[in-house]
Amino acid sequence: MQTTTATDIPVSRHEPRDTASAPFTSRHIGPRPSDAEQMLAELGFDSLDDLVDAAVPADIRQQMPLNLPPALTEAAVLEDLRTIANRNIVKTQMIGRGFFDTVTPPVVLRKVLENPAWYTAYTPYQPEISQGRLEALLNFQTMVSDLTGLEIANASMLDESSAAAEAVLLMHRANKKAKDGITLLDADLYPQTRAVIEGRAQALGLDVRTADLAAGLPSELGADLDEKGLCGIVLQQPGDSGRVHDHSAAISQAKDRGAMVAIAADLLSLALITPPGEQGADIAVGNTQRFGVPLFFGGPHAAYMAVPKGLERQLPGRLVGVSQDAAGRPAYRLALQTREQHIRREKATSNICTAQALLAIVASMFAVYHGPEGVTAIAQHAHRQATRLAAALETEGFQLIQDAFFDTIQVSVPGLARTVVTAAEAAGVNLRLVDAGTVGISCDETTTDEDLVAVLSAFGAPRESLPARQDSNAASTTNSSTHDAGSLASARIPAAQRRTSRFMTHPVFNTYKSETQMLRYLKRLSGYDLALDRTMIPLGSCTMKLNATAEMESISWPEFCSIHPFAPDHQTEGWRFLLGDLEDKLAEITGYAGVSIQPNAGSQGEYAGLLAIRRYHLDNGEGERDICLIPASAHGTNAASAVLAGLKVVVVATAPDGTIDSADLEAKIEANAGRIAAIMITYPSTHGVYDADVREVCRKVHEAGGQVYIDGANLNALVGLAQPGQFGGDVSHLNLHKTFCIPHGGGGPGVGPVAVAEHLKPYLPTAEQPITAAPYGSAGVMPISWAYLYLMGGEGLTEATRYALLNANYVAKKLGDAFPILYTGETGLVAHECILDLRELTAKSGVTAEDVCKRLIDYGFHAPTLAFPVTGTLMVEPTESEDLAEIDRFIDAMLAIHAEMEATTPQTLADSVLRNAPHPAEVLTADEWDRSYPRSQAAYPVDSLRRDKYFPPVGRIDGAWGDRNLFCSCPPIESFEESDPADAAASATAVADSIESSSSVSH
Amino acid sequence: MQTTTATDIPVSRHEPRDTASAPFTSRHIGPRPSDAEQMLAELGFDSLDDLVDAAVPADIRQQMPLNLPPALTEAAVLEDLRTIANRNIVKTQMIGRGFFDTVTPPVVLRKVLENPAWYTAYTPYQPEISQGRLEALLNFQTMVSDLTGLEIANASMLDESSAAAEAVLLMHRANKKAKDGITLLDADLYPQTRAVIEGRAQALGLDVRTADLAAGLPSELGADLDEKGLCGIVLQQPGDSGRVHDHSAAISQAKDRGAMVAIAADLLSLALITPPGEQGADIAVGNTQRFGVPLFFGGPHAAYMAVPKGLERQLPGRLVGVSQDAAGRPAYRLALQTREQHIRREKATSNICTAQALLAIVASMFAVYHGPEGVTAIAQHAHRQATRLAAALETEGFQLIQDAFFDTIQVSVPGLARTVVTAAEAAGVNLRLVDAGTVGISCDETTTDEDLVAVLSAFGAPRESLPARQDSNAASTTNSSTHDAGSLASARIPAAQRRTSRFMTHPVFNTYKSETQMLRYLKRLSGYDLALDRTMIPLGSCTMKLNATAEMESISWPEFCSIHPFAPDHQTEGWRFLLGDLEDKLAEITGYAGVSIQPNAGSQGEYAGLLAIRRYHLDNGEGERDICLIPASAHGTNAASAVLAGLKVVVVATAPDGTIDSADLEAKIEANAGRIAAIMITYPSTHGVYDADVREVCRKVHEAGGQVYIDGANLNALVGLAQPGQFGGDVSHLNLHKTFCIPHGGGGPGVGPVAVAEHLKPYLPTAEQPITAAPYGSAGVMPISWAYLYLMGGEGLTEATRYALLNANYVAKKLGDAFPILYTGETGLVAHECILDLRELTAKSGVTAEDVCKRLIDYGFHAPTLAFPVTGTLMVEPTESEDLAEIDRFIDAMLAIHAEMEATTPQTLADSVLRNAPHPAEVLTADEWDRSYPRSQAAYPVDSLRRDKYFPPVGRIDGAWGDRNLFCSCPPIESFEESDPADAAASATAVADSIESSSSVSH
Repeated sequence: MQTTTATDIPVSRHEPRDTASAPFTSRHIGPRPSDAEQMLAELGFDSLDDLVDAAVPADIRQQMPLNLPPALTEAAVLEDLRTIANRNIVKTQMIGRGFFDTVTPPVVLRKVLENPAWYTAYTPYQPEISQGRLEALLNFQTMVSDLTGLEIANASMLDESSAAAEAVLLMHRANKKAKDGITLLDADLYPQTRAVIEGRAQALGLDVRTADLAAGLPSELGADLDEKGLCGIVLQQPGDSGRVHDHSAAISQAKDRGAMVAIAADLLSLALITPPGEQGADIAVGNTQRFGVPLFFGGPHAAYMAVPKGLERQLPGRLVGVSQDAAGRPAYRLALQTREQHIRREKATSNICTAQALLAIVASMFAVYHGPEGVTAIAQHAHRQATRLAAALETEGFQLIQDAFFDTIQVSVPGLARTVVTAAEAAGVNLRLVDAGTVGISCDETTTDEDLVAVLSAFGAPRESLPARQDSNAASTTNSSTHDAGSLASARIPAAQRRTSRFMTHPVFNTYKSETQMLRYLKRLSGYDLALDRTMIPLGSCTMKLNATAEMESISWPEFCSIHPFAPDHQTEGWRFLLGDLEDKLAEITGYAGVSIQPNAGSQGEYAGLLAIRRYHLDNGEGERDICLIPASAHGTNAASAVLAGLKVVVVATAPDGTIDSADLEAKIEANAGRIAAIMITYPSTHGVYDADVREVCRKVHEAGGQVYIDGANLNALVGLAQPGQFGGDVSHLNLHKTFCIPHGGGGPGVGPVAVAEHLKPYLPTAEQPITAAPYGSAGVMPISWAYLYLMGGEGLTEATRYALLNANYVAKKLGDAFPILYTGETGLVAHECILDLRELTAKSGVTAEDVCKRLIDYGFHAPTLAFPVTGTLMVEPTESEDLAEIDRFIDAMLAIHAEMEATTPQTLADSVLRNAPHPAEVLTADEWDRSYPRSQAAYPVDSLRRDKYFPPVGRIDGAWGDRNLFCSCPPIESFEESDPADAAASATAVADSIESSSSVSH
Repeated sequence: MQTTTATDIPVSRHEPRDTASAPFTSRHIGPRPSDAEQMLAELGFDSLDDLVDAAVPADIRQQMPLNLPPALTEAAVLEDLRTIANRNIVKTQMIGRGFFDTVTPPVVLRKVLENPAWYTAYTPYQPEISQGRLEALLNFQTMVSDLTGLEIANASMLDESSAAAEAVLLMHRANKKAKDGITLLDADLYPQTRAVIEGRAQALGLDVRTADLAAGLPSELGADLDEKGLCGIVLQQPGDSGRVHDHSAAISQAKDRGAMVAIAADLLSLALITPPGEQGADIAVGNTQRFGVPLFFGGPHAAYMAVPKGLERQLPGRLVGVSQDAAGRPAYRLALQTREQHIRREKATSNICTAQALLAIVASMFAVYHGPEGVTAIAQHAHRQATRLAAALETEGFQLIQDAFFDTIQVSVPGLARTVVTAAEAAGVNLRLVDAGTVGISCDETTTDEDLVAVLSAFGAPRESLPARQDSNAASTTNSSTHDAGSLASARIPAAQRRTSRFMTHPVFNTYKSETQMLRYLKRLSGYDLALDRTMIPLGSCTMKLNATAEMESISWPEFCSIHPFAPDHQTEGWRFLLGDLEDKLAEITGYAGVSIQPNAGSQGEYAGLLAIRRYHLDNGEGERDICLIPASAHGTNAASAVLAGLKVVVVATAPDGTIDSADLEAKIEANAGRIAAIMITYPSTHGVYDADVREVCRKVHEAGGQVYIDGANLNALVGLAQPGQFGGDVSHLNLHKTFCIPHGGGGPGVGPVAVAEHLKPYLPTAEQPITAAPYGSAGVMPISWAYLYLMGGEGLTEATRYALLNANYVAKKLGDAFPILYTGETGLVAHECILDLRELTAKSGVTAEDVCKRLIDYGFHAPTLAFPVTGTLMVEPTESEDLAEIDRFIDAMLAIHAEMEATTPQTLADSVLRNAPHPAEVLTADEWDRSYPRSQAAYPVDSLRRDKYFPPVGRIDGAWGDRNLFCSCPPIESFEESDPADAAASATAVADSIESSSSVSH
């Protein structure tokens, strides 16, 4: 929970403005009232009220409407956001500590970060319609791999600190010889990184200790290490202090003890400093924020992780790889085998998503735009400015705490640090108050001489003390993109730590140098892809709804995006008001007592929530409560999170109607009497059905002394109709990227606030006990959800839920004859999504659900969710934002495909239009055509395609991979039921890797 | 020239910031230095200096570098722009007078106005790659036609006042019976409209008078009208006063006298008020700004003109029509026949462009988004607020000057108007100071009750005086887009003036109501089109260069775009500084003494410049100087502008080498001794060549007492190298949409500042003697050019010119063997563009230049300029922004097409890949294929297309039309050499129509 200052920010005091226009609700919701009438008639209901009353159990309905302000217009909300933004104060940010100012190239800002073609895209599980973002992510991986000197980099992590925690877990599962050994953290880690690692370790009982490793392993630890073994060490380069370390002693001593080595490294510094791979590291992690991603008050930013070959199967997160399509064309796709070994379910298709795809894409495009020379020049600039500042301060008699540094120095000013920091702030610059006697100063891409002069003035040093630039590459107007790469006087980086190897030599980093080239490259890539700006994305469990422009608009305002997460409170009143207000509103919506928006993905929210439960029991002296009941139908993530929080998973069976098997629940409770910590349920269930007995389930668990965790993945079926905190839940996490309009970004950012009842409020994550690097998580995208709430108001939010039900039930009704609906409630209705059962059709025709997904591409659609929660099915969630015409277009496509399936037999399958789908233009225009069906059937099976046709750039990609890449949810959970706790932890941490990266979009 | 206040705005005082990054110049310019070396080697030069020295005559080279500030980074320029913007004060704008506040739907703002796919597009002369913007413009026409009740509306005019002037000219050429008769302007016209009409009329000697027509034609004019005849009357509804008139008496009396009737009508009011067409008007004109286009300090806005059937051939401007393609598919294209009759050259292809396409598209999308109910609701809101305000003021004892009004009232406050206006400003609202005793108040879409309360407070009236809303349609959160269309208490619109007919009934205005639908509609349309974000647009004479994001960014900042053009000066310091500074910088670049940025198109700049010359001669007592010499190679626009300024055109022949025929020049001077007013030359010539004798030409004309007008169309070949104001020019106009990076917007906005030598400065347009509706023309887009100048600096601008020469000469060299270069300078070099002569190839193969243009679409390119200035040729201008790879891609395409031409004979032509081009996907994927060439040759003639292929949505459109639609420049000028002055004026005004609309992009 955030500390909200009670600043008097007058938002939401508008009269309804711009009353001339239709309300925003009618822009957010797809169907017109007349459409709704037609749809209700199809369903046999007289009114939407009747449908909702029939679908939602009366038992859980909330009695009072949401107590939220009335809906405002877009203009009014933007005005309010300006008012809030104006309560943040933008200073030159030289605080450092993992967050540095940077310039987002304007063309990247506008064409990626502000472009729905990129930000409304889904995770690239359907690789044929995702070649653009896959290429961008592959660029990201290449950039990270090159800069770190390690062969394999993944497609991003949630934040630097949790990435470092992942590195610790990776070492514990990869280092077979010392998996129960000690992990040593160097004392010069960022404090937030240490805190996050320690939190994770504590939950899992790992022995993690901090020591000064600057000169090697401390001899006083020798005995402990001899006894317990050394699993791994975690170093940071440059250190929290800014010092550039010589880590060779620590590394070689650690290796001697069979330990693994992880280095948290500033990516920009690696243009000048010997990369981790060349130092012998097994893992490198860090933030890529300063590659063009705004400070965003702490996030979202793409962190990275890289490992050498051999460890790729241990690497968490998404990995993009190159493969080929049916015709042998090179094609990108997500590479999965590492995941699958961990999950150990032979048929599992993983649901792991990239964590921060949109931000990773921005960072990668920064690298594409600047190239190796540009990145080097930027690193040199930061170093040069720090070097000049250091020289000036030393000349003036100040003492630095370090000789060797990259961009950050710390200055010793006994007793005067606060005075200096305050003076600097008055001069327009934020410095870091390290302690009462130490001031930290970080230079970056944007640091000007005037900034340095301002800093010097805070130390009482005159302008003249700043030495002249030795090698100026002041903005030249000649058309040169080369920089004085070789001429830098980098005396402050010791020779032994200087990078000598080349990086980013691939043509993609050396081609798109003019803005026109960059613009066209971005356009070409986005043109390969299908996102919400072209088509419905009917992904069950993913809630791909409108990300309205007015919601998106403010996130790139400087007053929001240029604020450092550790800026002093009085500069961030606007931010803290907005975040606190958002937490309050989410508490009202969910019926809980408190909310923390810190978790920067759904998985993080789950982890935080379960940790709260675990700690609550411990504080109550009930440490023996360590069993987490999880229904078989739950997201796999649930189980993984439980294990991470130190709980053991017991699965409760699903009844034939999709609800929780009541008898099995009672049996499991009885079998684990006194040990029940919690039950995790998803509501409506992952089958898309409201379980009428949910209160009863909660009651039973409460009676057994357990807590109830209600997964908010399907909150889009509840808002305004029912409150998890009121019908039995003690904790929930929400997915702002599902229900509350934060775009999926092609695989992140996600935001997963955790909401708790009163008795669990003390256990929410805080800045002091964090689970992410930044105190407010992915603050930067929160204005999106805030704007959504104010644009809709309580009534509008409720209306959205009602239309979500209408749309889903309409789809179920229209498609149910062709594709049986797997589960419905007692009334024959579904909630906000429905599962189409293809198994019988597959058995008859041989056509698989995957074939249907690929064929939908030919019809211009993104596929529904494949094989979750039941293999052989498709789960469809239209959301309230899809209009009737688009839904009918989808229904027509599905019915046409149904007819194609009926015309297919196992014998004709191989040469069928379904198995050959999707059909790229190159195939359709080939000189030769020997298929069993005409080209027109392949290309234009319905007439509307003749005016609006999407051609995938490649054909079907490597079927064997494809089967496993399509899944939009977490892995089945049975695999987590381990008898050996040690194995369970290892397995869970393995799966946890996936959670970190996946939940942002899949959960 | 603008009045620039000497406010102290500290721009351009940065040290070079962000010195880490490559300079912006290297982002603007395409080729890398290493590319340049390779290109220079190809050309046989050792350095760019050598090439430039060889290409540009020493005689005209400027000796000193441009005296401009050094280049700044994008971050620094944006910071400066913020500083400037903060010197504008945003108030609630209730001034009216033709400009009203409005809400740009956020999705339209981001996806149209801020989207390069729309704003970098060219005028849709190549209809096959322009179906998206053609559809948008057709929507615009339909919207205007429906609302005005007149069958034919064009695709926009430059501004309301010049549109009204066009209406007067139209009446004078269409009303054959009374073309020399009197034109009466109603006294209740906007003052700016009257001023612009009178300026135009004066130049042409038309008898235009103002009278109060409220009660019919004034009887005291009877005798004059009997004698001279009445050509037409111009009315305004609602009037400048806000009054809703009953025009029936004036209209019927005018018709009785055989006069035509033009009505300037507020488009929004027409949702409630009887439209001009139903009142018997022959012409309706007006502004469409309040349909979602920001105030922009006065422009750019799309004006409209509509006429009944029968007058369509007299209609100026572009007209989009529906046609069909080679396969019979419906397809849009520009309809041209009206133009051609006027031009009277049987082979002419007109170059007329839409005037304000981008703004027309925004306005049309506002209508698409809101639909008829939404537009009606917005009109009702404005009316309701005005009605309530009027009631409150009347209750408080104030007297309104009118009973009947729509959204604007005027209040009588004898002697106190300034006091009231000042008090309102203090309360946050700008009102109109009509005169010392009258205050004007205009309500609009955004007017809130709080705004009304603020206005009332300025009158000393209490909050309570405001009556309650009678029929609230306060923002409802129900999902309803219907409004209380029928329930408005519109007592202030007399029953006889109330609209009863329906409008915007077409499905396009009734379909895209959710934001998702709107987003996808915009995406689909833009996907049909090729713009600079996908491909080079190598249009000779059009200078399609980079429109950088950093340049575009500030135009939608509220501090720029929400300022009313008649806001008090102390609120617009930032704007006036920026505009004045831009004028100063343009004067420095061109070597002139003064600049006015008022002309909102190239044609307007020409007209203003020639008018200055004409008035100069008149003031010197040399009214007999009325001959304007125009070389045969000049833009047709030149001649049309000359006639509009009251000059007569005499054509000077072109020598075989493309220069001016010196002997003919002397002969024409001698033949017109004492009558030479001016010569208009384009430099470099429209042949793309530097004429080494230009100083000599200027000298001869000066000796003959004439002035020299140097058309700035080709200024991209001069900036930093030579100054027209220094090598002989007295006047030039510039095209900010060519040389200075304002995007073409799919056919506008254009900006055409006029620059003059010292002695002509008194004759520049001013707010008092305007040529456009707004005192600063298209102020809203000026920050683009301003940013460009500061981003490049003098050195960067010069470098851009040098690279423009390099690119053009490289193209000429590489293509010259296949396609002879029609003209080169003495050194064999071209300037910034080159003409490819296809005539011999056409003679041999039958393949026309048009076929080549269409075939280029299959290669993913926009065509070069076709048949200007010489039929049978293509003119290629790569600009400096195209990189070597893209230029080589173009060269490869042209060479591949050359090979295809060589393989074609007149006999095989009909079934050739060239004549059948372009090939849409539907053709290429057809089940049957009976062409003489394989599909692969049609679709993928070069391999790179397999990774990046654009398919046009339609095949070749109606060849007969196509021939005339491709031309990117003004019509040949010989047709303007008239012996009968009356005919000349008529002809010129006809062509002038085209100029108004065309120059924005073609000149």
